[in-house]
Amino acid sequence: MTTKRTLPSDLEIAQQAELWPLTEVARQAGLPAEHLIPYGRHAAKVDLGVLDEASGRPPARMIVVTAVTPTPLGEGKTTTAVGLAQGMAQIGERAILTLRQPSMGPTFGVKGGAAGGGYSQIVPMETLNLHLTGDFHAVTAAHNLLAAMLDAHLFHGNALNIDPGNISWRRVLDINDRALRNVVIGLGPKEDGVTRQTGFDITAASEVMVILSLCSSLADLRARLGRIVVGFTYGGQPVTAEQLGAAGAMTAILRDAIQPNLMQTLEHTPALIHAGPFGNIATGNSSVLADLVGSRLADYVITEAGFGADMGAERFFNVKCRVSGLTPSAAVLVVTVRALKTHSGRFRVVPGRPLPPEMLAENPGDVLAGADNLRKHIDIVKGFGVSPVVAINVFPTDHESELEAIREIAEAAGARVARSTHVVDGGPGAAELARAVVAACQQASEFRPTYALDEPLATKLEKVAVQVYGADGAELSPQASKDLKRFEELGYGNLPVVIAKTHLSISSDPKLRSAPTGWTLPVREVRAAVGAGYIYAICGDMRTMPGLGATPAAQNIDIDETGEIVGLF
Amino acid sequence: MTTKRTLPSDLEIAQQAELWPLTEVARQAGLPAEHLIPYGRHAAKVDLGVLDEASGRPPARMIVVTAVTPTPLGEGKTTTAVGLAQGMAQIGERAILTLRQPSMGPTFGVKGGAAGGGYSQIVPMETLNLHLTGDFHAVTAAHNLLAAMLDAHLFHGNALNIDPGNISWRRVLDINDRALRNVVIGLGPKEDGVTRQTGFDITAASEVMVILSLCSSLADLRARLGRIVVGFTYGGQPVTAEQLGAAGAMTAILRDAIQPNLMQTLEHTPALIHAGPFGNIATGNSSVLADLVGSRLADYVITEAGFGADMGAERFFNVKCRVSGLTPSAAVLVVTVRALKTHSGRFRVVPGRPLPPEMLAENPGDVLAGADNLRKHIDIVKGFGVSPVVAINVFPTDHESELEAIREIAEAAGARVARSTHVVDGGPGAAELARAVVAACQQASEFRPTYALDEPLATKLEKVAVQVYGADGAELSPQASKDLKRFEELGYGNLPVVIAKTHLSISSDPKLRSAPTGWTLPVREVRAAVGAGYIYAICGDMRTMPGLGATPAAQNIDIDETGEIVGLF
Repeated sequence: MTTKRTLPSDLEIAQQAELWPLTEVARQAGLPAEHLIPYGRHAAKVDLGVLDEASGRPPARMIVVTAVTPTPLGEGKTTTAVGLAQGMAQIGERAILTLRQPSMGPTFGVKGGAAGGGYSQIVPMETLNLHLTGDFHAVTAAHNLLAAMLDAHLFHGNALNIDPGNISWRRVLDINDRALRNVVIGLGPKEDGVTRQTGFDITAASEVMVILSLCSSLADLRARLGRIVVGFTYGGQPVTAEQLGAAGAMTAILRDAIQPNLMQTLEHTPALIHAGPFGNIATGNSSVLADLVGSRLADYVITEAGFGADMGAERFFNVKCRVSGLTPSAAVLVVTVRALKTHSGRFRVVPGRPLPPEMLAENPGDVLAGADNLRKHIDIVKGFGVSPVVAINVFPTDHESELEAIREIAEAAGARVARSTHVVDGGPGAAELARAVVAACQQASEFRPTYALDEPLATKLEKVAVQVYGADGAELSPQASKDLKRFEELGYGNLPVVIAKTHLSISSDPKLRSAPTGWTLPVREVRAAVGAGYIYAICGDMRTMPGLGATPAAQNIDIDETGEIVGLF
Repeated sequence: MTTKRTLPSDLEIAQQAELWPLTEVARQAGLPAEHLIPYGRHAAKVDLGVLDEASGRPPARMIVVTAVTPTPLGEGKTTTAVGLAQGMAQIGERAILTLRQPSMGPTFGVKGGAAGGGYSQIVPMETLNLHLTGDFHAVTAAHNLLAAMLDAHLFHGNALNIDPGNISWRRVLDINDRALRNVVIGLGPKEDGVTRQTGFDITAASEVMVILSLCSSLADLRARLGRIVVGFTYGGQPVTAEQLGAAGAMTAILRDAIQPNLMQTLEHTPALIHAGPFGNIATGNSSVLADLVGSRLADYVITEAGFGADMGAERFFNVKCRVSGLTPSAAVLVVTVRALKTHSGRFRVVPGRPLPPEMLAENPGDVLAGADNLRKHIDIVKGFGVSPVVAINVFPTDHESELEAIREIAEAAGARVARSTHVVDGGPGAAELARAVVAACQQASEFRPTYALDEPLATKLEKVAVQVYGADGAELSPQASKDLKRFEELGYGNLPVVIAKTHLSISSDPKLRSAPTGWTLPVREVRAAVGAGYIYAICGDMRTMPGLGATPAAQNIDIDETGEIVGLF
């Protein structure tokens, strides 16, 4: 049986934490002082000049933290990533964490902030969740400048002959605002612009955000911004940000945002927080530059990828690692007893409501009934030639027999496995996991992406559907087939692919549980994110602008009489 | 005759500048190190805790830098403010500059950045003009959170009974985007919100920006945000941000933004850059908190107010000084030979085109022909009981006889006067001006606002129109009269007033030059900015969202191969 002591709240733990000066965190991380640029008291930017310095060490081992298919309970992926980084220090290894910056908008919606939990948190959480160093704001500004220049171009005579009915570039705000999903702009008198229908997405869904996360240098950022396709001419030719003269100014806006942000965990482990592209329609990974900086400083870079291994990890392997050139050594698959019980389909779990009491009773049979989902995710990781390490995120209410059941499932599927109690115990609770990860990294990597870049786009989609998701195949709509062909004619054929699908199932149907078989991936529509550098396929309804509920979290957020922020947790 | 040597470009001067570490700027300014919070390499925030420390010195003299009625040529108000602050150091006086943060949006529109010019600049200008420490972005986020919560309230049943046809709260972006002036939101399926017409203003026009500039503490910020009126119920009752539960979260978003930002001039004079409300519809002044911090550290606080003395300076006196409690000692009235020649009405000056050659010929008669504008502005300043100091911003092409003509006009009108060559000579060029300002500050201040707060709102408007602008009176539309009465019933009667009118004339008609008489101020409409704390009267068409031209400045902005930003000047 696991720890029984009562855990203080995340807030209490965070407030009791003694933070180190970031200069000290940087020193311990081996970052030369001249490359640290303070931004406020508890965050700093890392000058990319550090990449030009000889490190004298081999590149770090890359470890991606992923999970089984998400349940409404949350599997504790962020806490595990933070705990693992802290656990590495416990066993004498030098690790750096690279995480996405949380989106500020949702902080005021259904949930509080995202910073880990218990004794595995990034601190201070209000810095992490509100603005940080302003990178999201810079993405918003750069994205919307392009939109304004596009509409100004239409207004001033449309010399490029852009078809207003074929514009894909929307606007963005880092906020949950459903009323902005579909809007008509340019109303009023003639001087108030050309009337057309468009909408706003949340900033995390911006292609500029993906570009920030995937670029490998300032020059690469500049080039990718220039390649953004905002729409098409009446003649069907793509219109780029470069043609609108916007890419240079967008780069100027993003010049500081390109530098990764340094923060610390509760145990002063360095964490590079950088970029935050959506996990369902975009890549769902933190930045290439943060991984490169981490790789130069530490022996292990631990990064988290959004949603399950079919989602963020697949893109980490097939998209991000191709750009960074870093070879992943191990993938940590986070799983909980409660998650597998939920995947059994035997319980009705509703977000925000108490768990069904029978779910807390000792019953390893319920765990086994949901095991196929874990097995499938192990297979996905192994399919990439990467060593899987199953991390059992232990809760105080778990029973020994249930934890043992997960161990047996994982080992039988050929994965290393470790329990982790990082939430209640911090780094020491993740030492076993850290040792398992180090062991996994000893194996020579046999990393292999799912497809080669020179294969046809349709083949790439088919391969991900079949080899990663376990579908029987991909079925393209006539329009999707036509568009893929057109993309190849336009020279986009060598791009990797991202499949925008639900994260609630390995399939494209959110209602199919565990490890669905006998299904086909329906590709309704394909789009080109040419600046980001991939083609994406729309398989299902994707929300790109969340809404606020009837009682949004914002209503509980305030300052207290000492000026501290309350209600953010 | 004045300096003839060739001046390097603003960019060359700025790039050759050796910046001091801000810790050194702060040390020289007497700011204790524990109150300096670095944000990037060349900007820092000042912890408001400094206000709680005993200063051991009397409050500083407040000097506001204002100007004659703006012409397309620009009078050099910012350069004069920067130069004067540098000049103070030349004559051994301790001065701090408080300036508005430039709006980022227009940087990509018709003009480059705003940072002064020549040897009187704030550096680095790219930091000043792009993001700075993110305060504008925080204003945008707080403003739009309130809008999203308002629309979510309508969507979730409208318990407050808000009349969707009587909502005044729009959204904001820090961008020039004409297509967003008038929009319809909430289109699409039912779950995408309630359909209604609204629009976007530029962030500088946000009431939240004015609140940031006028609040005197974090608690005051919180209270003012709560008082924001977003619209009215079907029954005509005001609906506030507090009722929507948004004010606490907005305060959390703005918690860091409330701290003034420290930068430096080319001569390392400390400059507090903070907030940037519009000068035509809002107060057009930097923040109360920056003035309070400056007042605690220095012997002279030099602040710039937007547009002519009828605009920013009037609000500085009647609105801002009431909040800060700081008594203004002197007002610097910036004037140029070219401005008075333009006010003569004898020349056709078009922005962006070369000056008419005959305007550069020596002709003091042309200067005298435009002198009434200067005389009127001197009278405006004297009307507040404040000592006017006319600063002649000398250009290399000016002629001695013309400069002398201005001196005679100013002295005859009872003002001190000094020439300043700060653009070509930096601080030493402003030493004469600095001495004149110090002399003016020796006079006991007889500061008197135009009206008492307990006078009726209509009387306040009338008094500003007559006593400041020189109108025969104010003529309220029937609706405006009705609304003023309603505001008084709602308890807003004790607020000061802001008159939103053109800055291109002392009158409300942009075509009336010099010092118009025999006219009446037409008050079409009145509105309540209850959070900011004033009633404002709309007298003319006010743009609250600029547009981009056919070849916006953004097209020339880029990074060079070393990663430096080019084209911003």
